[in-house]
Amino acid sequence: MSAAGAAVPQSGGEPLCVFGTGDLGRSLGQRLLQCGYSVVYGSRRPDSCGPIPLGAQALSHADAALSASLIFICVHRDHYGFLQNMAPHLEGKVLIDLSNNLKKGMFPDTNAEYLQRLVPGAAVVKGLNTLSAWALQNGLLAGKQAFLCGDSAEAKQAVSQVCTRLGLSVLDKGSLSAARELEDFPLQLFPQWRLPLCIALGLSAFFYFYLLIRDVIYAYVEDGKDISYRIMVSLANKVFPIVSLVMLSLCYLPGVIAAFIQLYRGTKYRRFPDWLDRWMLCRKQIGLLALGFAFLHAIYTFIIPIRYAVRHKLISRVVDEMKDNKTTPFYFDNTEAWGTDSFFVLGILGFFLYVLLGLTSLPSVGATLSWREFNFIQSKLGHMTLFICTAHGYIYGWNKFLKRSTYKWYTPPGYMLCLIVPSIVLVLKVILLLPCVDRTLTRIRQGWERASSRDQTEPFKASKF
Amino acid sequence: MSAAGAAVPQSGGEPLCVFGTGDLGRSLGQRLLQCGYSVVYGSRRPDSCGPIPLGAQALSHADAALSASLIFICVHRDHYGFLQNMAPHLEGKVLIDLSNNLKKGMFPDTNAEYLQRLVPGAAVVKGLNTLSAWALQNGLLAGKQAFLCGDSAEAKQAVSQVCTRLGLSVLDKGSLSAARELEDFPLQLFPQWRLPLCIALGLSAFFYFYLLIRDVIYAYVEDGKDISYRIMVSLANKVFPIVSLVMLSLCYLPGVIAAFIQLYRGTKYRRFPDWLDRWMLCRKQIGLLALGFAFLHAIYTFIIPIRYAVRHKLISRVVDEMKDNKTTPFYFDNTEAWGTDSFFVLGILGFFLYVLLGLTSLPSVGATLSWREFNFIQSKLGHMTLFICTAHGYIYGWNKFLKRSTYKWYTPPGYMLCLIVPSIVLVLKVILLLPCVDRTLTRIRQGWERASSRDQTEPFKASKF
Amino acid sequence: MSAAGAAVPQSGGEPLCVFGTGDLGRSLGQRLLQCGYSVVYGSRRPDSCGPIPLGAQALSHADAALSASLIFICVHRDHYGFLQNMAPHLEGKVLIDLSNNLKKGMFPDTNAEYLQRLVPGAAVVKGLNTLSAWALQNGLLAGKQAFLCGDSAEAKQAVSQVCTRLGLSVLDKGSLSAARELEDFPLQLFPQWRLPLCIALGLSAFFYFYLLIRDVIYAYVEDGKDISYRIMVSLANKVFPIVSLVMLSLCYLPGVIAAFIQLYRGTKYRRFPDWLDRWMLCRKQIGLLALGFAFLHAIYTFIIPIRYAVRHKLISRVVDEMKDNKTTPFYFDNTEAWGTDSFFVLGILGFFLYVLLGLTSLPSVGATLSWREFNFIQSKLGHMTLFICTAHGYIYGWNKFLKRSTYKWYTPPGYMLCLIVPSIVLVLKVILLLPCVDRTLTRIRQGWERASSRDQTEPFKASKF
Repeated sequence: MSAAGAAVPQSGGEPLCVFGTGDLGRSLGQRLLQCGYSVVYGSRRPDSCGPIPLGAQALSHADAALSASLIFICVHRDHYGFLQNMAPHLEGKVLIDLSNNLKKGMFPDTNAEYLQRLVPGAAVVKGLNTLSAWALQNGLLAGKQAFLCGDSAEAKQAVSQVCTRLGLSVLDKGSLSAARELEDFPLQLFPQWRLPLCIALGLSAFFYFYLLIRDVIYAYVEDGKDISYRIMVSLANKVFPIVSLVMLSLCYLPGVIAAFIQLYRGTKYRRFPDWLDRWMLCRKQIGLLALGFAFLHAIYTFIIPIRYAVRHKLISRVVDEMKDNKTTPFYFDNTEAWGTDSFFVLGILGFFLYVLLGLTSLPSVGATLSWREFNFIQSKLGHMTLFICTAHGYIYGWNKFLKRSTYKWYTPPGYMLCLIVPSIVLVLKVILLLPCVDRTLTRIRQGWERASSRDQTEPFKASKF
Repeated sequence: MSAAGAAVPQSGGEPLCVFGTGDLGRSLGQRLLQCGYSVVYGSRRPDSCGPIPLGAQALSHADAALSASLIFICVHRDHYGFLQNMAPHLEGKVLIDLSNNLKKGMFPDTNAEYLQRLVPGAAVVKGLNTLSAWALQNGLLAGKQAFLCGDSAEAKQAVSQVCTRLGLSVLDKGSLSAARELEDFPLQLFPQWRLPLCIALGLSAFFYFYLLIRDVIYAYVEDGKDISYRIMVSLANKVFPIVSLVMLSLCYLPGVIAAFIQLYRGTKYRRFPDWLDRWMLCRKQIGLLALGFAFLHAIYTFIIPIRYAVRHKLISRVVDEMKDNKTTPFYFDNTEAWGTDSFFVLGILGFFLYVLLGLTSLPSVGATLSWREFNFIQSKLGHMTLFICTAHGYIYGWNKFLKRSTYKWYTPPGYMLCLIVPSIVLVLKVILLLPCVDRTLTRIRQGWERASSRDQTEPFKASKF
Repeated sequence: MSAAGAAVPQSGGEPLCVFGTGDLGRSLGQRLLQCGYSVVYGSRRPDSCGPIPLGAQALSHADAALSASLIFICVHRDHYGFLQNMAPHLEGKVLIDLSNNLKKGMFPDTNAEYLQRLVPGAAVVKGLNTLSAWALQNGLLAGKQAFLCGDSAEAKQAVSQVCTRLGLSVLDKGSLSAARELEDFPLQLFPQWRLPLCIALGLSAFFYFYLLIRDVIYAYVEDGKDISYRIMVSLANKVFPIVSLVMLSLCYLPGVIAAFIQLYRGTKYRRFPDWLDRWMLCRKQIGLLALGFAFLHAIYTFIIPIRYAVRHKLISRVVDEMKDNKTTPFYFDNTEAWGTDSFFVLGILGFFLYVLLGLTSLPSVGATLSWREFNFIQSKLGHMTLFICTAHGYIYGWNKFLKRSTYKWYTPPGYMLCLIVPSIVLVLKVILLLPCVDRTLTRIRQGWERASSRDQTEPFKASKF
């Protein structure tokens, strides 16, 4: 014991106190021990409170509170009652409220304010409630943000020091009245996915109805044919690649816009407009959704030949060939063979690169890349993917662009519409790659400023482009 | 030097000693240095012992032992001989035996007990043998468990303090006679996969033979046809989705059972039966195996149209059509087109969600999710997947349930059998979602107890449902 | 505050100084704070320098330099000018140059040497420039290597102590003239992928032209047929599996060679030849490329039936069947059905295992495996995959090996060529598994040495086989 104790002084300082020996309490205590603190548990039954981490001590609530000035409350709001009874023992202590509720608006006041009301003599700090017992146990805290709020600056300072030792980045959110925001935080569901999902759903719905009208309803109205069975697979397999391509181009558009803004302003030291910032922050999610749609497109394509309608059509065609008394080998259209094969090859390569991009956005894979490698993949490989997928779209319509029959009811087909944004992105990107433009942009990104723009020096939020 | 030294005192305490400068010894020493300990190596040739971590010191075995009271033995059992010779120098020291063997039962006694016999005056502690040099080097210790055993409580306490600083969770396994268990531990192969794999293999074998009898043998006995070629692909492609669906439902069944147990008992503070606990702990593995089978099912389906037998059948059908002098366009069955397309669409969507569930169970992806998000995906999305896949199964048999010819030899086809468990799980889940039931369950999970159940207060192991 | 402060002394020592409050400076400071150092920032405008981590202090450059002896320079080379002006304040300090350039050879001298020239009185240490702000923020340092170079051993020692506390493994690269190498390091792009990529491209090009001559040009020269449309898909779908299989066998060949070298030498304590070491270090990359080719092969196979040429051929065949007045059911070749189905099944299983191997090489998945499990998957499962894929290749040519027509222009088809290396690897592996050979090898790997080889005792670099 002395050997280890000598090297890293542990038992010297005042201990930290944890009320509650549930999952969260145990995990938090263990983690605090691992960071070199000594830990004391407060429990209703200190002798039979279940397993606590090796090295910690279990006392009664009152004794535990006596020995420490920071107390972590790892107890459900429903059980806060006992704290009111022992309020005298908590006078002058810092109470950290880690509790969460199951739903928004379950109680009129926040847990933290309720706690402060029960124990007016203590300084309540709300925070750390975004940590799960699971993350604590598995040491997954590094780099995570911890929000704190509370009315006593000194208390917050003490808690933030502990948070820093736990490996967290602390963000002060102000007085205890901000507790509502902090308690709602862990109840949010994929906040950064909301906008991308809305875009994806909006685009899907639009193109779905657009194609429904152009294909199914047109056939019914003009030719009296019922091809409604196409709704399930054929239509979907047109919508998926369209949405996927548009989303992919939306993923690279903000980077291009940002470059033009920097060129125009002649400096990188000014903030982008808010909408652009928000857009750039959800590029990863937009890209992953695009990959999802591409994945669905691929599988929908693979099952084409086993569909009833496709087999039926194939058999009909054979019987037709026979009826016309054609002799074999009948006409083999070499151009058609080259065209469709190129179409497939571009699609496959595009999908392959798509998957590669998706893999490198896995956190553990991305962590093994240097910044330059990450940049190479997300920028070079990304634009290459966009180029190949756009070419895939152009070849799909290669001989149909100029045909009259393509424009049913004077509307262009879906794939033409979806080629607009990607084409614009690619053209703008080519302009940015012109040597003269590229040189200026590189200098701006290295910190050079055009004379006229020096007067603004707002700090600039770095953006990986 | 002084700057860094001043901020974090390092050189003050007694050093830790490591015997052995192999891969493990070097990695362990480096990690100890990173945790703020000073480290001394004991080596046969202190001057030419190969690279040791910067900041550590290499001495002779005897000198190193003198300067420390904790000695990590990172040497193969075969080379323990020299320790006996220097036993006097090790009097009163704590020796940590980290060694592993290549196979179970290679030696009659454990390495730790052998070491204790060689150096009776020291306190041998077995432990840390589950750590690989690779994990140590890459800082992958956080959250891992370290088992310790030894006869001296004081020695174990000292070692456990070091383990805690390394970020490990320590579990005391008792006296040195438990060393056998600890030494066998790293020789285990996927212990948590054993039960799920047995279930998967059992189900596969059962359904394979069931379908073999119903399809191939039935055709041979009743019609005299040899369709044995179906064994390779067609049969397998029936077994895979069946097993996958059953496994998926087995993944969600224990959660439902647990909810009903809690409802029945009126409290969450009582342990589940052991079999349920064990089942719940291997749900992830069961789910991943289900995904594996679904993946195989998907690929088997994609290659259907290029199989010889399928092409042969298609050609035969065309020739038949011609023989019957049917005229084109011959009859197009709209219901059939809708039915098969719905079948495919449900299958594709189910597979898509399956893959999504699999992706979120990747450790690095899971770590980026909040508890609520993880819960949403594994519970909501999981039950949705189960529902879609079950619907996929029902549509497969939509018009065959009531046909006589379906029940060859009075046995139901495989897909009917496999729909039983998923249907039960879904029905039970729907019951749990009824407002009145849901409200009671939520209250129980928040800690509320029905009056009659208060008398039992056994600590309860939290389960993520 | 006192509670936390007491347990882990933080404010005691001399602080570390960081010049520059950009992304990198802020992230580094935060990380230093989390490791228990106190941090002072030097800034042009200490009062309006943007957000700095909680707990750090912002001073003017001169004041900050006064209070610390270690100064991290997180500023672009372009802005080094001000350091010359304040050179007197930097006398005797250790300056750590973390800067990087955008391209190789942008400046005649390295940033570190330039800095040393500007401030001759300080001890410049180059290093930590491989860390990104992103890695620092997310705590992804554990196990990463930090290279240092500098002319003052004392200065390097001080810096390396800080690096160790940050969780890095330090490697001293010598005097400041090595700065060129360190500054070029983060500009490298996938250095460990270069060799595997060259092999893959070389193999692809060779087999592509080989098959082009044998298939397309042969058909044109001998039969006058233009089958050039096959270039896009059919040829590629022959090249991909060939390259994939060869790469997979190249992934397991070095392990087998290493085993035979150890058997021949009778010891594991001697280094392998350099080429073998380098080969073994890029096995993971070779394997992942093989997986990439297998993935492409799979998708190319799935789209076969929707290709124009394939449909055309199918229809032609039906019409031919009709012309020949065959009656249905026409001849069903049971052997053909078994053969092709076996071929597909082996391909699918091989691909499944391939994907499994790929998944376990994800960093976060690999980290959850024990060494024995990792070894089991990469060795046992890997050789199994190689065996199944090789069998897939053999069945492809099952009845063609002895046919004359197979050897166009006296050249063997591509798949025969590609079976050579895998077959050799499998045969050698089987030899190694013979009990007598296996026993000797196991003893050697446990440290046993044949008498004749004891005289060499060069330290051996461990290799996971």
